[in-house]
This record gives sequence, C-alpha cells and structure tokens, in this order.
Amino acid sequence: MTGKLYGIGLGPGDPELMTLKAARLIAGAKVIAYPRLAGGTSFARSIAADHIAPGTREIVMDIPMTVDRAPAQAAYDAGALAIRTELDAGHDVVVLCEGDPFFYGSFMYLYARLRSDYPVEVVPGVSSAMSCAAVAGLPLAARNEVVTILPAPELARRLSGGNPTQTLPPSDTIVVMKLGRHFAAVRAAIEVAGLTDKAVYIERASTPDEQVMPLSKAPEKAPYFSMILIVKGADPWL
Amino acid sequence: MTGKLYGIGLGPGDPELMTLKAARLIAGAKVIAYPRLAGGTSFARSIAADHIAPGTREIVMDIPMTVDRAPAQAAYDAGALAIRTELDAGHDVVVLCEGDPFFYGSFMYLYARLRSDYPVEVVPGVSSAMSCAAVAGLPLAARNEVVTILPAPELARRLSGGNPTQTLPPSDTIVVMKLGRHFAAVRAAIEVAGLTDKAVYIERASTPDEQVMPLSKAPEKAPYFSMILIVKGADPWL
Repeated sequence: MTGKLYGIGLGPGDPELMTLKAARLIAGAKVIAYPRLAGGTSFARSIAADHIAPGTREIVMDIPMTVDRAPAQAAYDAGALAIRTELDAGHDVVVLCEGDPFFYGSFMYLYARLRSDYPVEVVPGVSSAMSCAAVAGLPLAARNEVVTILPAPELARRLSGGNPTQTLPPSDTIVVMKLGRHFAAVRAAIEVAGLTDKAVYIERASTPDEQVMPLSKAPEKAPYFSMILIVKGADPWL
Repeated sequence: MTGKLYGIGLGPGDPELMTLKAARLIAGAKVIAYPRLAGGTSFARSIAADHIAPGTREIVMDIPMTVDRAPAQAAYDAGALAIRTELDAGHDVVVLCEGDPFFYGSFMYLYARLRSDYPVEVVPGVSSAMSCAAVAGLPLAARNEVVTILPAPELARRLSGGNPTQTLPPSDTIVVMKLGRHFAAVRAAIEVAGLTDKAVYIERASTPDEQVMPLSKAPEKAPYFSMILIVKGADPWL
C-alpha cells in the first residue's frame, strides 16, 4: 500500500481562510511538502504554521525565480523524488499550496509527475480572486455575468502584438492577475479601453500588508501578488 | 453602535470545506440569516448546521423560484428589513452563503440593500468552480492560461441569436455554470465547437451525491448545481 498525495489549498494569506479540512489534514500529517523561493521563506508554510505538529517531516523545494524554466523544473523533479520515497513507504504526503492548488498553483508540477503512480486528492481552497472581490466590496459575478481571468503576462504578450483596444475581453468582469513587472503595460491598456474608473487595485489581499484602492490611485510598482479587478457595472448586483 | 453584517462563504457543499473563519463566526453568531427555496430546505443552513449554537435566532428568506424576479426581490426586501432591525439593535448578523458570497451568490441582493447603512464584511469561500476542478483532477488554470466563466443562461441567450460556433470564448479553460434547463443547448454548442472530448460534467461537487464524468457520458438532464469544465490542453500543466 502506497501513501496518498494531498494537494491542499491554504487560501490567499489569512490563516483563518484555510478550510477545516486543510487544517485537519495538516495537523495529522507526518510528512508535508512545499515550495519556497530559493534563499527565502515559504509563504505557504507561514500560512499553515499553526497547524503543523512538532516532529512533522518537511520536504522543501527551493524554487529559483529565473526566466529560464529548467532550474525550477529540476527543483520539482527533486521534490517529486523525495515525495515518491515517502509515498512508496506508505506515508501520506500533504503538499501546502497558497490559494487553490489548481488555480495557477505550482502543485500542478508535482501532480503531473506523480498522478499516474499514486492516489491523489486535491482539497480546494479560497482563491485570491474571491478574496480580492471580498476586500474590494465588489461582486466578482452577479446573475448571468461572464467573468474572464487573464494573467498579466498573457495580456502583455497580446499587447506586444497589436492594438491594445482589442486585448481586453468583452466580459462583464475581468480579473488581471500576477501584475508584477507587467503592471505599467496593463494599466495603459485599461486606460486605452476606457475602463480605469471601473478598476480596483488589490495587493496581498487578506494579509496584514493588504492594499485596496482605485487603480487611478495605485502606486507605480506592483508585486507579483497583486491584481486588478474590473467590474463594468457600477452597481451590477442591483 | 449598529451591528455588523457578515456575508459568509460556506464552500460548495462539504461542511469541511468551510473556512476556519466562517466556522468561528457562525458559532459565535446570535443572529444568522439565509435564503431557502420556498417550501423547501436551505442548502446553506445544512452546510453550516454543526456550527450553529442552540438559541441562535434565524432569519429565513423564503425565495420563490419563478421566472418573474419580483417575488424573489420582495422576499429579499422582507429579509433585509428583518436584518435591519437586528443591526439597529446593535446585533451582528451572519448571512450564510453557499460557495463564495460574491460568485453568483444571492448575498449580493442583501448587500445592495444594506451596504450604505451598515458595516459589512464579506468572508470569501471555496467556490464551486475550484471544487469541480479538484474533483475532476483538472487544473482550472496553469501558468498564464486564460479562464472564462460563462453561465449557461447567458450562453443560451447567445446561441439563440446566431452561429453557435461563435458563442464559446477562445479561452484555455471554460467553465459553464448553472446548467439546469439549458443543458441540452450547451451540450450541442460544445459538440459543434469540437470540444466534447475536452469537457467534463460535474454535478453537486463535494457532496455525497457528487457525479463526475466525461460530458459524452453525462445523462440527459442536469440540475442547477452542475457545471461543465472544458480544459483545452490535454495535459496543460506539463
């Protein structure tokens, strides 16, 4: 009997936005695994910290932040190998994931390497998109509205190819994720589309460093953990 | 001092997919409020049941399921009035919401009526979209993929107007929600678009009645709480 692999969503940052199931599985885990930025700390582990029992074994994947994907993939290779050893010995392994594991999560790299050989359960979590809507006081979707979630790097790629007015989808709500170094380009595209007055900027939602403001008042630089929420109706829920 | 209004996401159905914060606020609430189908039971209350303390006052909104919106809006009017009475008396009111309050949630009808006059906090929850991706074993979004969430009634409206090949967005992932009586039309549009082999049907995710299967094997009728997940890459996370 091999162990089971769990991919566990921890929510967007506030440890209280973890699910009861996530807290139970982490507290009962003999082995946990998580990525961290090479040389830094792990945001995922910090969210889960209060539930990790003393003596829990920890498999840490040091992920280099390079444009070249190969070094990061090598780190997931090594992590998957360490996880295999535990699973083969019959131990369950709980992988800690910021937000939701299947919503732009790095869990998928482990999932791709292990899902054919072991039982896997994904425990969904509160995503950053839901959390940002909550703190902005704006419904992500009302009635039969259409929502598009668009990562900033993809929007930037489209912008570099042509007319910026054609790069934002016609949806009722647009969520632009992962702003980081693409923030200026995204902001310009929203301005060209005449949507700046419908746009809210949110940074590190649900954490002590949370920032929420109209896009027109946002600072010049945005971290990776930031997004813009464009809700086209002024009072779309009425 | 008036009370505070909380809109609390309960997750998609499994009571363990509630957040720690939701469980704490429900357990501590003196007053809760929730909608139910007129004459039926409340799904939201059933998810929260284990956390509701004896003696908690309950404001129940009986929502008639009619095509005409006026009767439902009258029920929310009456509910908002009862909630006002509690808030004016300085009591917090916790509104129970299936899934996430701002993701196609009925909480927005109370929010619209009360947000100008009282402090409001929205506690995000695990949405049905995340839950469906988890049980289907398919990532909703990988890397810089674009996701569109499209309610079936809106897709049906578009289909009635023209060429069905132009009604599905070009996104990497498409989530079609609220299938119900539009299921046959949605299914036909997916077939015309050549996407049936990328489509998974999910019903009542995370509940004991959960069903997950390829769309090609789905039954003819679908309930309201069902969705289709179309993930265009075969192994999009690799």
